[in-house]
Amino acid sequence: MPFPTYSGDIDTWSTQDFHGKVDLTVTFGGDGTILHASSLFASSDIVPPMLSFSMGTLGFLGEWKFAEYKRAFREVFMSGAAPETRNGVLEPSVPTETSEGGSGLAGWSSIRGKSMGSSRAARVLMRNRLKISMFAADGTPLSSGGVGNSSQQHLHAMNELIIHRGRDPHLAVVEVFVGGRFLTEAVGDGMIVSTPTGSTAYSLSSGGSIIHPLVSSILLTPVCPRSLSFRPLVLPAGTPITLKLSNKNRGRELEVSIDGVRRSEAMGVGMEVRVTGEEIKRSEGSWHGGVPCIVRRGGPAGEGDDGWVGGLNLLKFNYPFGEES
Amino acid sequence: MPFPTYSGDIDTWSTQDFHGKVDLTVTFGGDGTILHASSLFASSDIVPPMLSFSMGTLGFLGEWKFAEYKRAFREVFMSGAAPETRNGVLEPSVPTETSEGGSGLAGWSSIRGKSMGSSRAARVLMRNRLKISMFAADGTPLSSGGVGNSSQQHLHAMNELIIHRGRDPHLAVVEVFVGGRFLTEAVGDGMIVSTPTGSTAYSLSSGGSIIHPLVSSILLTPVCPRSLSFRPLVLPAGTPITLKLSNKNRGRELEVSIDGVRRSEAMGVGMEVRVTGEEIKRSEGSWHGGVPCIVRRGGPAGEGDDGWVGGLNLLKFNYPFGEES
Amino acid sequence: MPFPTYSGDIDTWSTQDFHGKVDLTVTFGGDGTILHASSLFASSDIVPPMLSFSMGTLGFLGEWKFAEYKRAFREVFMSGAAPETRNGVLEPSVPTETSEGGSGLAGWSSIRGKSMGSSRAARVLMRNRLKISMFAADGTPLSSGGVGNSSQQHLHAMNELIIHRGRDPHLAVVEVFVGGRFLTEAVGDGMIVSTPTGSTAYSLSSGGSIIHPLVSSILLTPVCPRSLSFRPLVLPAGTPITLKLSNKNRGRELEVSIDGVRRSEAMGVGMEVRVTGEEIKRSEGSWHGGVPCIVRRGGPAGEGDDGWVGGLNLLKFNYPFGEES
Amino acid sequence: MPFPTYSGDIDTWSTQDFHGKVDLTVTFGGDGTILHASSLFASSDIVPPMLSFSMGTLGFLGEWKFAEYKRAFREVFMSGAAPETRNGVLEPSVPTETSEGGSGLAGWSSIRGKSMGSSRAARVLMRNRLKISMFAADGTPLSSGGVGNSSQQHLHAMNELIIHRGRDPHLAVVEVFVGGRFLTEAVGDGMIVSTPTGSTAYSLSSGGSIIHPLVSSILLTPVCPRSLSFRPLVLPAGTPITLKLSNKNRGRELEVSIDGVRRSEAMGVGMEVRVTGEEIKRSEGSWHGGVPCIVRRGGPAGEGDDGWVGGLNLLKFNYPFGEES
Repeated sequence: MPFPTYSGDIDTWSTQDFHGKVDLTVTFGGDGTILHASSLFASSDIVPPMLSFSMGTLGFLGEWKFAEYKRAFREVFMSGAAPETRNGVLEPSVPTETSEGGSGLAGWSSIRGKSMGSSRAARVLMRNRLKISMFAADGTPLSSGGVGNSSQQHLHAMNELIIHRGRDPHLAVVEVFVGGRFLTEAVGDGMIVSTPTGSTAYSLSSGGSIIHPLVSSILLTPVCPRSLSFRPLVLPAGTPITLKLSNKNRGRELEVSIDGVRRSEAMGVGMEVRVTGEEIKRSEGSWHGGVPCIVRRGGPAGEGDDGWVGGLNLLKFNYPFGEES
Repeated sequence: MPFPTYSGDIDTWSTQDFHGKVDLTVTFGGDGTILHASSLFASSDIVPPMLSFSMGTLGFLGEWKFAEYKRAFREVFMSGAAPETRNGVLEPSVPTETSEGGSGLAGWSSIRGKSMGSSRAARVLMRNRLKISMFAADGTPLSSGGVGNSSQQHLHAMNELIIHRGRDPHLAVVEVFVGGRFLTEAVGDGMIVSTPTGSTAYSLSSGGSIIHPLVSSILLTPVCPRSLSFRPLVLPAGTPITLKLSNKNRGRELEVSIDGVRRSEAMGVGMEVRVTGEEIKRSEGSWHGGVPCIVRRGGPAGEGDDGWVGGLNLLKFNYPFGEES
Repeated sequence: MPFPTYSGDIDTWSTQDFHGKVDLTVTFGGDGTILHASSLFASSDIVPPMLSFSMGTLGFLGEWKFAEYKRAFREVFMSGAAPETRNGVLEPSVPTETSEGGSGLAGWSSIRGKSMGSSRAARVLMRNRLKISMFAADGTPLSSGGVGNSSQQHLHAMNELIIHRGRDPHLAVVEVFVGGRFLTEAVGDGMIVSTPTGSTAYSLSSGGSIIHPLVSSILLTPVCPRSLSFRPLVLPAGTPITLKLSNKNRGRELEVSIDGVRRSEAMGVGMEVRVTGEEIKRSEGSWHGGVPCIVRRGGPAGEGDDGWVGGLNLLKFNYPFGEES
Repeated sequence: MPFPTYSGDIDTWSTQDFHGKVDLTVTFGGDGTILHASSLFASSDIVPPMLSFSMGTLGFLGEWKFAEYKRAFREVFMSGAAPETRNGVLEPSVPTETSEGGSGLAGWSSIRGKSMGSSRAARVLMRNRLKISMFAADGTPLSSGGVGNSSQQHLHAMNELIIHRGRDPHLAVVEVFVGGRFLTEAVGDGMIVSTPTGSTAYSLSSGGSIIHPLVSSILLTPVCPRSLSFRPLVLPAGTPITLKLSNKNRGRELEVSIDGVRRSEAMGVGMEVRVTGEEIKRSEGSWHGGVPCIVRRGGPAGEGDDGWVGGLNLLKFNYPFGEES
């Protein structure tokens, strides 16, 4: 076989061991499995393409049914997804291919045709991530504390960062800065900083809008705010956001979670989390940033099985009143 | 004076008379005045820069207080905003200047420094518009029906397009297509297709999130939907959206409004509205699309009076509980 | 037959012609039909029992399927629902049977057993109505203006009263008084004053909570308010509520609707609507106020087919995510 | 002095020590202090009247400013609130004085005149409580586990009962039964069962409506539900509600809190909490149930300083847009 095989107990590996060695991640399971696979590359700027099979109920992130596995792998390999040319495959469908002008993002639909020619049924969806770093009250960078098993300072999230009071009976008080400027003091259960991909996860439960994954943005959604007027916000992906634990928290600690994994150490007064959207860029034929997800293209004519609309159906979006048919 | 002066009763002019002749629009009044000024260019792809003074209470769109007029005009002229070089001025602050990578939109804050050098206190914010066209049930293009006073088929909206049942006691039924694919059937008072700029207008009242004007996107917000699960959606700006009046409306007509102006003819069964985000592009030193708004930059050190944050304060965003101070 | 038969074209009758002559109203159709039947008694304090069959899709108000008509009528007649004893039947299930103390309303479930003995499958649900009167700016009482076809000043609503700007492009401004005291100025599309029965109608679309019909209360729900902090309110049923058209409306008129029927004349500046919950009382074995609805009791063991829970299912309340089973 | 004085460290007492010995509870502090004082009687059916002074910022429950203390005490004593006649004082203003008919609850305003004659400026507001009991999976009653410091099985809550996943990364799954019938399976952060008094506390943060304290009802409000369609519910106060921990929680435990105090033991799969509104009844001149709160009546003419409206102002309810005046 032309590719190396690694063996051993994956749990004993450092996640860095994967970086640069994996050409394709294949997941079997639900959204949790995909998030976990993504988290193995949380400290890396480069994430290999991900091919996800749902094994039972469909999730929002995974698109392929296991019965389709032959077609799925054929698509991947015929697309030239061999190691050395991997990145070239992703290129046509990267969302921010803005050569046609400044309007930024073309709709998912409009980029479908470019992906792999008319005979291909797969596309690559680049999911933006958050770039996260944490700092002590004195400005010292903090390690990720177990999330991502990494000593690296930058971590990435595919869904969201959450600051939450957990089981503490007192409300969390978090100062929110946007672009270096104080925006507001959030009082409540917590705060979510989410990607568009994460807009159908915890942000949705907290009242956030549903954002298409190709809208280059960051969501700021409060969790059970002690305010009648804290409407969720959507900011440009490049906006630097800082969440600082107010000294009104009086020595208490708040839980920090990244993509559903709680940081081993809670955060105390004065500590802060800085978040911004990960930059996706191309240099010398290779892509940095984002999680390239191999997604299906619909029926025989390829006329329009948009996974996002299918995901809305899973959410029972705008379900009509009345009896079951 | 080196520039021509036109006189006459503006209300008797066709809006086309303005196009190409106006180098700078100055408004005195609130958001309604700005929307009206913008609507004079609803049928044009090119909108001259807009400088807006609030005369009483501050609005969300206008940023300058009248007392600042000297500084405001000085900024405009010193920036070189003479007719022949106008577009050059806008260039540095156009949001989608993505040379630094593919992440699309840089935050408002991060582009501030580029605008006119450190000595300048003004920036240009390009507000995306919607591009709207209407069609009869047989596919014939319809004129704008009084909105924009134009026979042109494409109209532009700075805030939103609204389809509403008006005073009709029956609920509106609107079929929503996204990227050419059926998404959902909206039953309720109506539907809003909004720009990020319009996210603080009617979409906000209808429960939509607040979207920063530099997030390249289109909002789909239902008005009083007959559903528990019609969460507002945010799509990429380039997504083609079609709203079609279902034949379940049974011969009734629905009101169509663009930026607050109701189309003289209502829409009937089978008629449809097609909307997409206007493309902003540059060619030969000149910019097409969008409404260039001249906005303030804060205090003496220019350190950060972001108009958007100020607008949130006007909305009484996340207003804390308790007594008035 | 021991009862009189009236014939003729119902549409030419005054609604007063029905009052005192009808012992049982039977409706065939959906919620709209039931609302219409109820509106025929909008100007009367006494409403005969209502037996409602759904002919197609189930509604929220009607409970009987047409195939059950034999059982339904048998229940009504065996219950002694002959004209002369009609009111006695309703007594056991009137919600405010508060002999057990001051806690007010017993749950629907707890009163089920009292209704007609263990062998009966029907119950009577007394639906509270709103009592509505309108006044000119100078305090002169206004007629109902076509709603209820009545010259009487008091009208009753089973669902709600709505003040709405209709197709007017300007926002409605309504001053809200509660218990004679100014509460707030509502700015938006309009205001809803709703019964608990109406909480699943327009109030639901406008973001109101779902209130069980036996919670003695009035709902104040804004329609698309120009505010981030106008949370819906629920007040005691006896609270006097006044909605007054602010002179900020500048001569414009607002639409007034009662149970879905628009008043022929719109309301102008200074006019006001006064609303309170209709009092349900018993005197000399007869009941005044409320709409007595004959509702089903569930399966063979009568163990618990609560119509309200069934209604929630029709609303697709808390519909779980995931694929259709 | 004609009344006994107890001294000692209150924290070492059993809460039962207070019961029957306290004639008037006076609190100095915010809502938390009032909740704490109320919790001292959580295991008692009879709660002495409560007079609450705010020491700094006004809360939603306490009404008196400390500077008013002379007037407040004078009102209490002149009203005859001596120990032996205490209950007589409360009578006139008990909300469910329904002699005028079955409509149940008269508005706060309408009962104001009855309270203590026109020369009195105080009223008593009976706040309904929840009656709560907990059971093991095998049906064995559980002790309150530290909440209320009591071995008694029934506990009472003035604000709410909360079941919450706390810091557990998995969503809580709670089966909700209403009136003995399965209503729905709640999946999310948790569930709130609240009194109307508690409607401005955590339920408000979770999206619930604002319910006037005299609406005899129970609120069911989900916390961050994993559903687009879980609208908050309001049920009659007498409705038996059961929350059961689904075995889908897979052995995990959920936090249970009563009026902000977390039960020392978490709850496991199969355990359930049963809640219903406390019955308020009068027997032999004495009142059982509810928390009698002595509230202010407004200005010189007593014409209408309704504390509830004042509370809405604290919440910044329907705060108008625009600049600060």
